[in-house]
Amino acid sequence: MNQPSSSPPTFRVADLIRRKRDGGALSRPEIEFLVDGCTRGEVPDYQIAAWLMAVVLRGMTGEETASLTNAMLHSGEVLDLSFLPAKKVDKHSTGGVGDKTSLVLAPLVAAAGLYVPMISGRGLGHTGGTLDKLESIPGFRVGLSVPEFHRVLESCGCSMIGQTERIAPADRKLYALRDVTGTVESPYLICASIMSKKLAEGTDALVLDVKTGSGAFMKKEEDAVFLAELMVETGERMGKQMVALITNMDQPLGRMVGNALEVVESIEVLRGGGPRDLRELCLELAAWMFFLGNASSTVAQGRQLAERTIASGKALGKFREMVELQGGDVATVDDPARLPSTKHRVDVLSPRGGFVSAILCEEVGTACVILGGGRERKEDSVDPAVGIVVHKKIGDRVDIGEPLCTIHCHSDAQAAGARKLLEDSYTISGTPPGHKPALIHRAIHKGAH
Amino acid sequence: MNQPSSSPPTFRVADLIRRKRDGGALSRPEIEFLVDGCTRGEVPDYQIAAWLMAVVLRGMTGEETASLTNAMLHSGEVLDLSFLPAKKVDKHSTGGVGDKTSLVLAPLVAAAGLYVPMISGRGLGHTGGTLDKLESIPGFRVGLSVPEFHRVLESCGCSMIGQTERIAPADRKLYALRDVTGTVESPYLICASIMSKKLAEGTDALVLDVKTGSGAFMKKEEDAVFLAELMVETGERMGKQMVALITNMDQPLGRMVGNALEVVESIEVLRGGGPRDLRELCLELAAWMFFLGNASSTVAQGRQLAERTIASGKALGKFREMVELQGGDVATVDDPARLPSTKHRVDVLSPRGGFVSAILCEEVGTACVILGGGRERKEDSVDPAVGIVVHKKIGDRVDIGEPLCTIHCHSDAQAAGARKLLEDSYTISGTPPGHKPALIHRAIHKGAH
Repeated sequence: MNQPSSSPPTFRVADLIRRKRDGGALSRPEIEFLVDGCTRGEVPDYQIAAWLMAVVLRGMTGEETASLTNAMLHSGEVLDLSFLPAKKVDKHSTGGVGDKTSLVLAPLVAAAGLYVPMISGRGLGHTGGTLDKLESIPGFRVGLSVPEFHRVLESCGCSMIGQTERIAPADRKLYALRDVTGTVESPYLICASIMSKKLAEGTDALVLDVKTGSGAFMKKEEDAVFLAELMVETGERMGKQMVALITNMDQPLGRMVGNALEVVESIEVLRGGGPRDLRELCLELAAWMFFLGNASSTVAQGRQLAERTIASGKALGKFREMVELQGGDVATVDDPARLPSTKHRVDVLSPRGGFVSAILCEEVGTACVILGGGRERKEDSVDPAVGIVVHKKIGDRVDIGEPLCTIHCHSDAQAAGARKLLEDSYTISGTPPGHKPALIHRAIHKGAH
Repeated sequence: MNQPSSSPPTFRVADLIRRKRDGGALSRPEIEFLVDGCTRGEVPDYQIAAWLMAVVLRGMTGEETASLTNAMLHSGEVLDLSFLPAKKVDKHSTGGVGDKTSLVLAPLVAAAGLYVPMISGRGLGHTGGTLDKLESIPGFRVGLSVPEFHRVLESCGCSMIGQTERIAPADRKLYALRDVTGTVESPYLICASIMSKKLAEGTDALVLDVKTGSGAFMKKEEDAVFLAELMVETGERMGKQMVALITNMDQPLGRMVGNALEVVESIEVLRGGGPRDLRELCLELAAWMFFLGNASSTVAQGRQLAERTIASGKALGKFREMVELQGGDVATVDDPARLPSTKHRVDVLSPRGGFVSAILCEEVGTACVILGGGRERKEDSVDPAVGIVVHKKIGDRVDIGEPLCTIHCHSDAQAAGARKLLEDSYTISGTPPGHKPALIHRAIHKGAH
């Protein structure tokens, strides 16, 4: 006779909520019970909402955050990429304006022999999304099936796709509830949401680019550092190689903001050019990806490897290869002028001479949304061609009437709102600013490597 | 042409939740919007649950607590007793073991010319309920309609009934949600729940008996004082005369615990006898009711009026009158031995000689529940006849083998569990306890009267 199979433990949900309310910690089985119950609709939303609010106000231990991440991760499909013969590494950014490093990093790191299985998101609010940028390449398919994703990865070492419905359904359920219950703004819940989705990719190592500044979700550096440390600890508890770079988002990264424009600028970097700040950040992130993926024995050597891989043309070649495998028009890679663009240009002129002392970076992202290049709501579609080219950044000298930036749009009328926003987002001072923001503030790397 | 009628304001619920989460205060219209939306099912339970948890952890201002109480009060029927020609006063107790003062106070205060419109509850857990006690009088109807309630009040000056479905439906809705979301234990929410129901009676003045000690919901005096101050402030903001007495519940009040037994003991007090502590508390509460209701110009004079009203027999006569008007068998008032009783008695004997130094009072209440005299769940019915007669209280000398208390039950087997609990609830020491608990700790009376 068979033994009766043991059923999963059940708990009194109100007791678990009360414990968290009073500042106690929940065990792994207790958190799994809540997450599974929420995903399956067996624990009512009102109990989950009360627990979420208690988490927002009481926080969680490292063990709880890892348990929550793990439960959300295993609510859905977790890719098994163990068939790939080298380390899998990925990068995740908390989002900013003009942040197109993913488009450079995936081919760059794959070109040096690691695998980059990159699952990305779409833009929402003032931040752009990697999928929207990729889709400005005619024909590029971000909606690959898992077997197709495997084939592209195996063939060229990198693939960039969107999140499927089967990845972390608990995160979708919980996020929808958080959105309407004032429980979005918790580093613990943000950490679990990001990490559960990223780790579903089956990566071995993850480099986090945690933005801080006027264009980032976390305006204050201490908040960015707190979240970064939480994500690094959580990833390490789950057996991943982790690092987080705290990077500046007080002004757009690079010069281009807008979907096709950002592909153009990414190709510039892959060709060995591009603006200094964007190139620098790509090289640093790639250096850490190489280091964590054991492709270099130090971060400095990883940096040299990244520089060599770009200089050799292999990184650009790998990008072309991935675009082709995912159905994109490679002619646009060879000649970025073939990417969608607008006929019309509107310069935003400086109202006075002096120095750029500050830029309201979030407003630059919002200007792009107003042009149609981003989304106010999830359902909105985006215009790949529109955007903003930023000529003047913090510390730059500017003459009266000189262009601060140029709007790519379809008509003067369309540009009006964005133009006003961009004008107002610049602060021009008589003297140069005391200091320009450092691009990379610090690296958070707890593990012993 | 008519002006379009102004519609009630609407708010983004997530914004309100976030404000409370961050420690801010909500306005009266915002709280009304939440309470009305909850009662009508227009604001989903998960949003209310998140708000409730934020209230538990962030608290509320006095203005918010009054707004919540007011919104809950006006979610249902509010009795208008302005047709009565004298002040309406009532008493509310936070609940304890052997607490039968309501049965004495309603007729006592009405006998001196004030009106006592008393809406009471049933027992739950270790605390008894006034309605259950009244129903041990054969025929007594606690479910009067509002017109019947008015008629009894008008005729004899007091009436004691249960809460109707039409009183404070928001409280029922919110309480059901709090019960399953770990949000019961908040003085702000407890205050609003109690006060919204009590003020629906249409009383002018309210005397609160807030219990503290081992048999009370609030074990710690500071918690009792906090809740008491909150309730007094809330009542005063709503234009009521208020006082709260902080009273001891480290041992049962009086000697009798159980439904019919407590009616017996109440009649003893109305006859001028009864145990000292119960009589004393009834006189003090009545004194404040007279004072707040302008039947006396000082509390001390109220106390004398209470003593005279009992001594004259008018208080007992009023009880008899009310019992008759509400359908109860008055023969039981004249001869309490006719109330339901058990044939069987089991003494709980002292295991040693010495002094009673402590009683786990909650356990005495639980022993009565085990006998069938109270409820573990709302749906349970109660046995009016069973109960406990307490012979020894804190500070009393006891010999080995002397009865500490006597269980009224139907068989030895039925008494076993309660007997063990009662034995274990007594601490017998070699020396008398340093101090006996004071019955009345303090009066909280903020208003200028």
